[in-house]
Amino acid sequence: MNYCSHCGARVTQKVPLGDNLPRHVCNQCELIHYHNPKIVAGCIPEWENQILLCRRAIEPRLGLWTFPAGFMEIGESTEQAAVRETKEEAQADVAITALYAVLSLPHIGQVYLVFRGRMLTPICEAGSESLEVRLFPLIAIPWKEMAFPVVSEALRRYVDDVTNGQFQLHLASLPDRLPSY
Amino acid sequence: MNYCSHCGARVTQKVPLGDNLPRHVCNQCELIHYHNPKIVAGCIPEWENQILLCRRAIEPRLGLWTFPAGFMEIGESTEQAAVRETKEEAQADVAITALYAVLSLPHIGQVYLVFRGRMLTPICEAGSESLEVRLFPLIAIPWKEMAFPVVSEALRRYVDDVTNGQFQLHLASLPDRLPSY
Repeated sequence: MNYCSHCGARVTQKVPLGDNLPRHVCNQCELIHYHNPKIVAGCIPEWENQILLCRRAIEPRLGLWTFPAGFMEIGESTEQAAVRETKEEAQADVAITALYAVLSLPHIGQVYLVFRGRMLTPICEAGSESLEVRLFPLIAIPWKEMAFPVVSEALRRYVDDVTNGQFQLHLASLPDRLPSY
Repeated sequence: MNYCSHCGARVTQKVPLGDNLPRHVCNQCELIHYHNPKIVAGCIPEWENQILLCRRAIEPRLGLWTFPAGFMEIGESTEQAAVRETKEEAQADVAITALYAVLSLPHIGQVYLVFRGRMLTPICEAGSESLEVRLFPLIAIPWKEMAFPVVSEALRRYVDDVTNGQFQLHLASLPDRLPSY
């Protein structure tokens, strides 16, 4: 950030009075600009012991697999964001059944809220941000072609829970570098 | 937003190619500026059947009560944010025990992530943003002096769960106007 989005003057990084972190403060109108983590709402869409994954048609990580996920918008709830992303990326309709994981990525200022979603029908089709969408039995998840470590992490926990016969809520903070699964 | 925070030129609201929502786009460098919901990390600190509440020393809602809560920062996890807010506002140390509620406020672009926290000691003291902090038996919660509807909503669910002897994860989207409890 170089300029004040309100008045257009230059900003300077400094710790405002009463604060303890440096912020971008406008040299002219003195507005403080806060930057906060973004929510990525994701969904693991389920259909008869299979889950739906999408192969990304956009950078970063074009050509690799993920569950539907994207930045939450103002004006929607977390669940609505997960349903919308599933519709946009995979043309699939889901009913959210549970919050499955809250995964913080402090190094990039993101928080993944991953839901489980029951597919209303097995119908799915690549949206504009996907090259291909497909239902996978858990044993066929393409672990070596996952788009992001956080996606692998959520799915690894999911497979473990299915194996153990019990879903739990996962709360974790992911380091910059994760082992690849 | 009036000016591009990157180059300082004017921005115009328009729907970028491939998008379906209006964004602030720079007239000069064409950077798209996204605005996303913010996470408010909160904690219900527990000590021997009592919970800790803070009376706000700042606007909005100065003089009214809330559990410790505030905007999550980049570089921390959701749990760390809840612990930090509890320390800042009430000088209290907590160990996070569970995620308790995910409450979306679509009309103001906020998502409350409310945790339960076990106080390590009963020591608490007003931080700079609090006039007063105090442990309350649930029967003494000052319902008529709550700072925000979302705080009342989370605490009402909490009291219900305690009454029923079982905590569950609460996932909800709150309307603009809530009944006051």
